[in-house]
Amino acid sequence: MKNFVLSAAAGLLLTGCSRPPAVSADAPVSAPGAIQYRLKMDQVKYDFGVYPPVASLHPGDILETNTADSDGHAVEAAGYKTGGFNPLTGPFFVEGAQPGDTLAIRFLSMDVDGDIGYGDIDPDFGGAINSNPYTPMLGPGIGKRSWTYPIDRATNTATFRAKDSTFSVRIPLHPFLGCVGVAPASGEVRSSIVPAEFGGNMDASEASVGNTLYLPVNVPGALLFMGDGHAAMGDGEIAGTAIEVSMRVRVKLDLIRKKKIGWPRFENADYIMAAGIYRPMDDALRIAFTELVRWMGEDYGLSAIDAYELLSKTAEIHVAEMVDPNYVVVAKINKKYLPHGR
Amino acid sequence: MKNFVLSAAAGLLLTGCSRPPAVSADAPVSAPGAIQYRLKMDQVKYDFGVYPPVASLHPGDILETNTADSDGHAVEAAGYKTGGFNPLTGPFFVEGAQPGDTLAIRFLSMDVDGDIGYGDIDPDFGGAINSNPYTPMLGPGIGKRSWTYPIDRATNTATFRAKDSTFSVRIPLHPFLGCVGVAPASGEVRSSIVPAEFGGNMDASEASVGNTLYLPVNVPGALLFMGDGHAAMGDGEIAGTAIEVSMRVRVKLDLIRKKKIGWPRFENADYIMAAGIYRPMDDALRIAFTELVRWMGEDYGLSAIDAYELLSKTAEIHVAEMVDPNYVVVAKINKKYLPHGR
Amino acid sequence: MKNFVLSAAAGLLLTGCSRPPAVSADAPVSAPGAIQYRLKMDQVKYDFGVYPPVASLHPGDILETNTADSDGHAVEAAGYKTGGFNPLTGPFFVEGAQPGDTLAIRFLSMDVDGDIGYGDIDPDFGGAINSNPYTPMLGPGIGKRSWTYPIDRATNTATFRAKDSTFSVRIPLHPFLGCVGVAPASGEVRSSIVPAEFGGNMDASEASVGNTLYLPVNVPGALLFMGDGHAAMGDGEIAGTAIEVSMRVRVKLDLIRKKKIGWPRFENADYIMAAGIYRPMDDALRIAFTELVRWMGEDYGLSAIDAYELLSKTAEIHVAEMVDPNYVVVAKINKKYLPHGR
Amino acid sequence: MKNFVLSAAAGLLLTGCSRPPAVSADAPVSAPGAIQYRLKMDQVKYDFGVYPPVASLHPGDILETNTADSDGHAVEAAGYKTGGFNPLTGPFFVEGAQPGDTLAIRFLSMDVDGDIGYGDIDPDFGGAINSNPYTPMLGPGIGKRSWTYPIDRATNTATFRAKDSTFSVRIPLHPFLGCVGVAPASGEVRSSIVPAEFGGNMDASEASVGNTLYLPVNVPGALLFMGDGHAAMGDGEIAGTAIEVSMRVRVKLDLIRKKKIGWPRFENADYIMAAGIYRPMDDALRIAFTELVRWMGEDYGLSAIDAYELLSKTAEIHVAEMVDPNYVVVAKINKKYLPHGR
Repeated sequence: MKNFVLSAAAGLLLTGCSRPPAVSADAPVSAPGAIQYRLKMDQVKYDFGVYPPVASLHPGDILETNTADSDGHAVEAAGYKTGGFNPLTGPFFVEGAQPGDTLAIRFLSMDVDGDIGYGDIDPDFGGAINSNPYTPMLGPGIGKRSWTYPIDRATNTATFRAKDSTFSVRIPLHPFLGCVGVAPASGEVRSSIVPAEFGGNMDASEASVGNTLYLPVNVPGALLFMGDGHAAMGDGEIAGTAIEVSMRVRVKLDLIRKKKIGWPRFENADYIMAAGIYRPMDDALRIAFTELVRWMGEDYGLSAIDAYELLSKTAEIHVAEMVDPNYVVVAKINKKYLPHGR
Repeated sequence: MKNFVLSAAAGLLLTGCSRPPAVSADAPVSAPGAIQYRLKMDQVKYDFGVYPPVASLHPGDILETNTADSDGHAVEAAGYKTGGFNPLTGPFFVEGAQPGDTLAIRFLSMDVDGDIGYGDIDPDFGGAINSNPYTPMLGPGIGKRSWTYPIDRATNTATFRAKDSTFSVRIPLHPFLGCVGVAPASGEVRSSIVPAEFGGNMDASEASVGNTLYLPVNVPGALLFMGDGHAAMGDGEIAGTAIEVSMRVRVKLDLIRKKKIGWPRFENADYIMAAGIYRPMDDALRIAFTELVRWMGEDYGLSAIDAYELLSKTAEIHVAEMVDPNYVVVAKINKKYLPHGR
Repeated sequence: MKNFVLSAAAGLLLTGCSRPPAVSADAPVSAPGAIQYRLKMDQVKYDFGVYPPVASLHPGDILETNTADSDGHAVEAAGYKTGGFNPLTGPFFVEGAQPGDTLAIRFLSMDVDGDIGYGDIDPDFGGAINSNPYTPMLGPGIGKRSWTYPIDRATNTATFRAKDSTFSVRIPLHPFLGCVGVAPASGEVRSSIVPAEFGGNMDASEASVGNTLYLPVNVPGALLFMGDGHAAMGDGEIAGTAIEVSMRVRVKLDLIRKKKIGWPRFENADYIMAAGIYRPMDDALRIAFTELVRWMGEDYGLSAIDAYELLSKTAEIHVAEMVDPNYVVVAKINKKYLPHGR
Repeated sequence: MKNFVLSAAAGLLLTGCSRPPAVSADAPVSAPGAIQYRLKMDQVKYDFGVYPPVASLHPGDILETNTADSDGHAVEAAGYKTGGFNPLTGPFFVEGAQPGDTLAIRFLSMDVDGDIGYGDIDPDFGGAINSNPYTPMLGPGIGKRSWTYPIDRATNTATFRAKDSTFSVRIPLHPFLGCVGVAPASGEVRSSIVPAEFGGNMDASEASVGNTLYLPVNVPGALLFMGDGHAAMGDGEIAGTAIEVSMRVRVKLDLIRKKKIGWPRFENADYIMAAGIYRPMDDALRIAFTELVRWMGEDYGLSAIDAYELLSKTAEIHVAEMVDPNYVVVAKINKKYLPHGR
């Protein structure tokens, strides 16, 4: 264990460490095909990077685990002090994953874990139309306010209650993970509030049941992290939060060897989808579409110019969020518009 | 007539001209309730501004007219030289419309007029991921290429045919007007390729049957223009064009007096929607959402902070286009989430 | 006169009007070589567009005129109601100027006209770090505040006096014109608060004595407007105003026939300078540099790749303003770094 | 040593490690007041983060060291393989530095180390007007080209030689460090090509003799890194590189305890300067100016509104670079415009 920590030290790549010799007693390696890992609140991480894994999996394994809510209510309920937003479950080491491979995460089930969701307007975040750290304005913006959202399992809804009137309304649940990511490239370690090439805090509702997420593998074992469950969210997450919840999730992990992608991608039976993650939104859109054009060339044989024209007539754009340190846009095309239906 | 032209001269507001004394013989004033105006190709405009109206309508009237395609194929087929992109039909003078009012345009029917649609990648436009006039790059970008899209009325589709392979695919039609706008404020005259506060080249698929568009009235008579029919378009119109067609349209015009809106708005049975129109996309989104928050306050009684939080959980965002001189984003909320169902 | 107005009507190009047959009695045509035009406050314009000219000049002429301050204090002092920000002097018709030519305006002298300058923080503008119309935020921003700046001719300074303390400080005068522009292309008419391809409200301190401004000619006669005198201004004009003053100016006009430029350019003995005018700032910079690379190729024989590399080592960037509807950046290279010193 | 590495592991803060018990034999601790550290090319870092320090200093110490060029020519000349752009010298541990303090780095001398400088146009970077990773475009951009710049000490110039003509020109040297940064906050580790709150690859010519740079301390000991020497650079570094050189530098380090700044700041006898580091440029400017307004309040007693107005009349803006993963803008005010001259 000590040897592992040494080789994983301080932002250095896991050179010479193809696999940890063992994982902690708290994270037993399950029989191939099914892994359970129950988050211990003293093991949460607040960054995507090279940390000792909490469990090790083989490609093809199904992982069942749980995640704490973004505000750390679950962490504090367990008697710990939160270390920031978006406490993460993980990392999970994927056997055989090497830089240059692609990790596939298929979302099998997601269930809100608890009876309450949280929403906040927080000056530390601000949101898209409030002074915030990266678009700062003089003058008072909108101050801190908090909402709780009772979760009703019978109707599968959460309830919004207005602060300044008696209005309330039910919002249907669409559970997804705000954070799914791997250790970044180039020895970087990134905060759990940041989305980027490695995935991370994408706040993309595409990270939900029925979809597969592809992430580039940057370090041996990939090192998968998950967290920031959302019971429901509007496009753009414009005030800075979704309905923030703890979550129970089941995902199936697979590895596509020697397949190198530039940015996170999603896929389901009907769509291929590329995420563009940067600022301003203009650049996020450019990234998403150049990646999607590349995909349409590599896997569907369309020339760049044909793909560009076809997207101009058929693309769909989902603005996932415009409030995190990078913005996230997902560009999509329905497979019915692509050659040989694949 | 001479008097009218004088008073309408050169970007000056139509001060003192509550209504033109007459319109041209080519644009007969119909009986109240139904107006037909058939576009004469020598009457097309290429700017939104104060021009002598081609017809005059009363609030409540239904207007039936037609529009030429954006590339001017229809204009040239009629033996005229096109004066630029997006030849416009209009302007239509709306009786009694005054600055500070809001013009409501309800889209009743839209039919592709002809058997062919056009698509282009053009260096003069470039598109979202190609060097273009306002995001210029060194080095060769992608050059001019043109596609034609046969329209099939039986299946209600247009067919894309690849340039660099034998692939072809049918795209379902969703006809809408790329250009709907009024004379701008402040005496401005804007090119028909520009969208802004006055509407214009919004390329928003929301300008289609079932929806109502609200535009601010800036000059007496409002002066409505329409054009740039699209048979179908992808979100973002990323290569610069939709499936460009001539169109036959029926719209119902109404006037909301002394109601001042900041930006174009759409509404249907299910949604209220505010358009944000600017660059970068970040600012377009900010404009759309602040306008939507304002709407939720004025008409639904929600405080700004409650509206902000509720949108963070329920908003929908439509990126209409990111290729025109200004970008267009539409922020929406389903009425089921709003007080007293209205 | 009537005939002229007719042909200039409503945003239509001055086709067939090579020169107005006469100008008004208030604006006598001087002998070739020297034109005086004293602004009458009922003749100010608030848009750049095709208006009847107030005077006509020949290439090579020197024009002496005056401009009103941006807030219209001078207009109101003369007993008129201001029609908006940036009242403009002009337009001036330049004999023989045709679309495709370039107008050269050499700034010979600029003198503050009066003893007082004005500064404002205005919610209608907002400025770069305050909620504003095109980057709107929820929550109260900074409200309206006004400053006056006594002008002292002996020391050639204006004095800033703090609102919230007793601090005051003298600021050296550097007079320039915030607005210098011609009628836009494509029949557009643009507000005097807008800078764009036609120049306009560039708020560039380069529009000052010792420099020459080049503007593209878009309509017969070019139609030059000037206004918005600044006694001094910081880079970026970040709160939305400079020290706003009335001005007396002398400029020499010249015409470069059949020379087509894409964006406004400046030049003096030491520098060539290209303005990029758009949003976001990123695009303004891209425009400025691609135009400068083009200039270095056309007039100095450097390949694009050599110009690009050389600019990476030697360019200077001036952020003129980031508060108007478009932002203005000026990219420069010292002529000492260019071939054959020209 | 082993213990230190453990406590510095993998992006974890150096909790409980007020100072390393010893530094390596290769990096002897000098007598207080003067530290020499000669870079060993196998010790270069390619990230800003928590690494074992190469030397330890006390506040008040002068550090003399050297840096390798950004392309790693110096690294490879020493027989090592470069691990990326911008090999860094460091980190240096500053005794007593704690999160919440500010580190002051005064640049005493900078000398180009060698006879040659390098410049590149590289598709991996692209530059401001070429397709690049974060503003990607379809179509071929400008490909890889390399220049060498002979350094002449007699004239203190470097020579640019055109690729596509016989033109050459001397460029005066203005040596500065492209990279100066500390370990980031929140356990992050960032690539040496990234500038952000912790400084890093700012490419700001303000990091030169005569100026002091202030950086926020985020971890115990601050952990200072330096590299990426530039012999000269144009504003914006628009093609992606300066004249890249190895460098010998002398800096004086000081600590301002319990002084917390938001972003890097510079100061010299005449100016206070705040860096804004983000994308788009608009946000970088907003960050720089809100930080400068804050500084003018804290240290000079001006209210936010007075500072805002005064900056609108007197600010200077330096666009350092617009080519790195974040853009860097420095907003400045001359101290002669500030209260009690300090």
